[in-house]
Amino acid sequence: MSFLVNRRDLRFVLYELLDTASLCERERFAALDKATFEAVLDTAHQLAEDKFASHAHELDENEPTFDGTSVHILPAVKEALDAYVEAGFMAAPFDEELGGMQLPYTISQAAAALFHSANVSTAAYSFLTLAASNLLRAFGDERHKRLFLGPMLEGRFFGTMCLSEPQAGSSLGDIRTKAAPTGDGDYFVTGTKMWISGGEHDLSENIVHLVLAKLPDAPPGVRGISLFVVPKRRVEEDGSVGPLNDVTLAGLNHKMGYRGTVNTVLNFGDAGGCRGWLVGEPHQGLRCMFHMMNEARIGVGLGSAMLGYTGYLHSLEYARERPQGRHVDGKDPAQDQVAIIEHADVRRMLLAQKVYAEGAMALCLYCARLVDDLETSADLQERAQIELLLGVLTPIAKAWPAEYCLDANRLAIQVLGGYGYTRDYPVERFYRDNRLNPIHEGTNGIQAMDLLGRKSLRDGGKGLRALLAQMEPTMAQARKHDRLRPWAVDLAAACARIGEATFAVGAVAASGQTRQALANATAYLHLVGHTVIGWTWLRMAVLAANAPADTTTADADFYAGKLHACQFFFRRELPKTERWAALIVSLDDTPSTMPDGGW
Amino acid sequence: MSFLVNRRDLRFVLYELLDTASLCERERFAALDKATFEAVLDTAHQLAEDKFASHAHELDENEPTFDGTSVHILPAVKEALDAYVEAGFMAAPFDEELGGMQLPYTISQAAAALFHSANVSTAAYSFLTLAASNLLRAFGDERHKRLFLGPMLEGRFFGTMCLSEPQAGSSLGDIRTKAAPTGDGDYFVTGTKMWISGGEHDLSENIVHLVLAKLPDAPPGVRGISLFVVPKRRVEEDGSVGPLNDVTLAGLNHKMGYRGTVNTVLNFGDAGGCRGWLVGEPHQGLRCMFHMMNEARIGVGLGSAMLGYTGYLHSLEYARERPQGRHVDGKDPAQDQVAIIEHADVRRMLLAQKVYAEGAMALCLYCARLVDDLETSADLQERAQIELLLGVLTPIAKAWPAEYCLDANRLAIQVLGGYGYTRDYPVERFYRDNRLNPIHEGTNGIQAMDLLGRKSLRDGGKGLRALLAQMEPTMAQARKHDRLRPWAVDLAAACARIGEATFAVGAVAASGQTRQALANATAYLHLVGHTVIGWTWLRMAVLAANAPADTTTADADFYAGKLHACQFFFRRELPKTERWAALIVSLDDTPSTMPDGGW
Repeated sequence: MSFLVNRRDLRFVLYELLDTASLCERERFAALDKATFEAVLDTAHQLAEDKFASHAHELDENEPTFDGTSVHILPAVKEALDAYVEAGFMAAPFDEELGGMQLPYTISQAAAALFHSANVSTAAYSFLTLAASNLLRAFGDERHKRLFLGPMLEGRFFGTMCLSEPQAGSSLGDIRTKAAPTGDGDYFVTGTKMWISGGEHDLSENIVHLVLAKLPDAPPGVRGISLFVVPKRRVEEDGSVGPLNDVTLAGLNHKMGYRGTVNTVLNFGDAGGCRGWLVGEPHQGLRCMFHMMNEARIGVGLGSAMLGYTGYLHSLEYARERPQGRHVDGKDPAQDQVAIIEHADVRRMLLAQKVYAEGAMALCLYCARLVDDLETSADLQERAQIELLLGVLTPIAKAWPAEYCLDANRLAIQVLGGYGYTRDYPVERFYRDNRLNPIHEGTNGIQAMDLLGRKSLRDGGKGLRALLAQMEPTMAQARKHDRLRPWAVDLAAACARIGEATFAVGAVAASGQTRQALANATAYLHLVGHTVIGWTWLRMAVLAANAPADTTTADADFYAGKLHACQFFFRRELPKTERWAALIVSLDDTPSTMPDGGW
Repeated sequence: MSFLVNRRDLRFVLYELLDTASLCERERFAALDKATFEAVLDTAHQLAEDKFASHAHELDENEPTFDGTSVHILPAVKEALDAYVEAGFMAAPFDEELGGMQLPYTISQAAAALFHSANVSTAAYSFLTLAASNLLRAFGDERHKRLFLGPMLEGRFFGTMCLSEPQAGSSLGDIRTKAAPTGDGDYFVTGTKMWISGGEHDLSENIVHLVLAKLPDAPPGVRGISLFVVPKRRVEEDGSVGPLNDVTLAGLNHKMGYRGTVNTVLNFGDAGGCRGWLVGEPHQGLRCMFHMMNEARIGVGLGSAMLGYTGYLHSLEYARERPQGRHVDGKDPAQDQVAIIEHADVRRMLLAQKVYAEGAMALCLYCARLVDDLETSADLQERAQIELLLGVLTPIAKAWPAEYCLDANRLAIQVLGGYGYTRDYPVERFYRDNRLNPIHEGTNGIQAMDLLGRKSLRDGGKGLRALLAQMEPTMAQARKHDRLRPWAVDLAAACARIGEATFAVGAVAASGQTRQALANATAYLHLVGHTVIGWTWLRMAVLAANAPADTTTADADFYAGKLHACQFFFRRELPKTERWAALIVSLDDTPSTMPDGGW
């Protein structure tokens, strides 16, 4: 068995749940078909096993080092990324004219899922480059594309995102990095950037930093931020790589997990010679960045989901193999011990992991499918709806997997017991790696504010209503099956709770008390997140319940497992929405009113 | 400020909540008084800061190594433990005639709390020795005490507990280590023991292993286990340390946390020359071990609590110092950023940590107080009640802090954001260290089975009823205060839920379906655990509400904080008992009925 993903499940999500094959009817994907998709995923799977998973443990134990001159990274990382580029994955989602294969984002993300599972640290270098490439594709001019995007898609240049600074993490409006015109159309960039993943290495010929900085005439705050492309080495007009560009490594950050992804503090322009090129319009940098950020957030969610998923598969295998103890009603010590998967509490921990990980992966791939629709649907009205839907789903797709698939990793360790706590088994690494995901690309607290403040309360709650409307057909289909009917009722009740909670908070916001209205945003994120995942499970259950009667035994088992997992979610997870909704409706302000001297 | 504990809170728990000073009225503690207790804790506090906290980070980064011959541990560990012994802490709780100071267990545990906070890895060596000493004190004969216990209390010998084997972790009845009579009254011990903390080092002259093994005529299972004292080096009758005793180090386990506590696989008698001495009666080893284990479980709970506590204090300090962002209703970028403690969601994360950590510490010290009562109360009927109470509280005191204070550490990281994820700050270490606690000394799943199967269902639920009876006076006192009255009502409702859940499960057990009855034991542990912590907070709130009106400002602030934290628990935590109770009453069997092919 593979520990990366259950491929039957991945096919189920891609073709039965998301009908990804139908994308091939669209012009952009006309050269592709389902067989191609599967061949791409087979290649990704093999490569992920052979070149990524193979060094994940060694990389975790040997993090990148800085000797004052250069950064040293385990050679297997470069080998893996070279093979990744060689197999065409770096360019795969891009236009054929850029050397890509115009792969749908959904399939590209499904392939990414396999690399996440295999080795998040090594995979991160390619995903950062993909994100930077996407940004240049969307906002770069001809010269940016020729000098930077082209080599990035060829895997010769890697990319980074330089947003945070030591004094400005979540609060990007407070960045201090400056960009001053050189007089020849370029800019001199000066400042310090923090938490820059992939900021220095010798995995590629050059590193392309996408840097947020302020122009001399910038208005204060988030409206005064511009975006610049700043290479590690200058690039000449003929594309040749020139001298260093005064981007210096101030130091490495040493993290609990994701240890193989070098994380840096970078100084730009210490010697006054750091040149950058403006991307997009002046002061519009944050808008450009958020174009990329939304997809990056879905990517974070998917990475979390896959860490949860591989942890689930590892602990499942262990539970099947490990004998320990006997049933409480059969404690005869002369009998053999039973495999621990026989114990009810172990099964609980496995099922919880399954509903978290499979639910999260399905949600993230659904979001990827929406991205494809947003870009290729012929129906403009549909696109507008999808944009709303993606807006409201993105903070959930980022934060929910980061929260619950981290918890899945906690459970995977528990299934393995003392062994799970050692570095001889990978589950403790997954747990350490996954702990980053509720923090980066906007903390989960910030996602919660985005979901409640922007996506649910503004514009008359159009985004939220678009989401709830999507759930109606699922509930209608579920009501046709005896086993599913109670879950349709439960999901409707959860939706009603969202309505009540939103109304209660909206009334406070309408009275001008914004701070009070948003104080319980995190509970709101859990409430809506659990409802969305419940809906996702119900969609999967409807498919399982409608499976043809003449299906194979293996498929029948698979569908039975989906139905049972859905039951687990509806009996043990969805009911949690009651408490979150009650808390929100109560407008409880206990945290805000804690007296200063009382801590 | 100290990051180890809020000493005002510790005094509150020791003297206001637990009235520890009144123990001095008893004969055993007649030579002591509150001033002595505080002097002991001052010494512990200083020593914990100076000698334990000081090398905690360095030790985590430099775990013990084995070069094939000996184990190397950072020298600061030995310096700290030598100072600990020198200050009298190793012997403190023991009789004066053994060189101790007859310190109450409550105060001894309060001192332990400070060492746990400072450095769990280094402190573990002393706590293991304490546990082994306790066992020899209770079950050892004169010779054991003279040859082993004496040197252990002098800090010349350290101790270990050797229970698990590679094939027998949670299932101790399946151990295979053998003990065969030598003919001269001793035994030859042969076998392999796993997960032995402190199993090999050069911190002390000798290591005293307490080993579970089976005699040749042993009945199968847990009724055939005997306890042996097996030193690393033989000890002659005159007390001198002799040659090696054929206990060999097979290897080290490399863990995610607790890295400074060497964790070993030990082979006994590979060369046929490992001598052991029987402790207690043949086949009674598990009973002896569980005498120690109950206190060890409270110790695990306290260790978890203190990791949660120090994480809380670190993140509180950070939240007060770190400026980031502005209030949602005052986003003028020209204004300074606010300290993050101003943000409602950060306050939520701090308050959650506070209620988990302070609640857990109070519960564990309450259990320690019960241990003192059990051993020194003059009232025999009271002792019987206390034994019941301790029995039902022990699995909770072990498992609840391990679960929720680990979660507190997760929140501490989140408060620090990206910084919290780096090894430059200690909160990620706390999170890694604390992940062990739900696993060792009986997994939390096993604690849940103990609580439900043994302590709540057997003997007509006497233990559970003793616990619920204890809560009545607290509720009566709370009803006298307007602010506390609703919480008394909520606590009574939670108690009623426990009654309903126990009744539902008891009916299943009575019908002979033991396996089904215990299937949701973990939910039961959460249900009872949260109720017990709710009760603990209400007890603290009653004291705060009854504080004299002429108290100092600092004390008034402290009490206001306690009341507010209690409010947080009752509004946001106790309501979770509803869902757990509903699940238990529903007898949901989803995990047990998952089809084999469905995973």
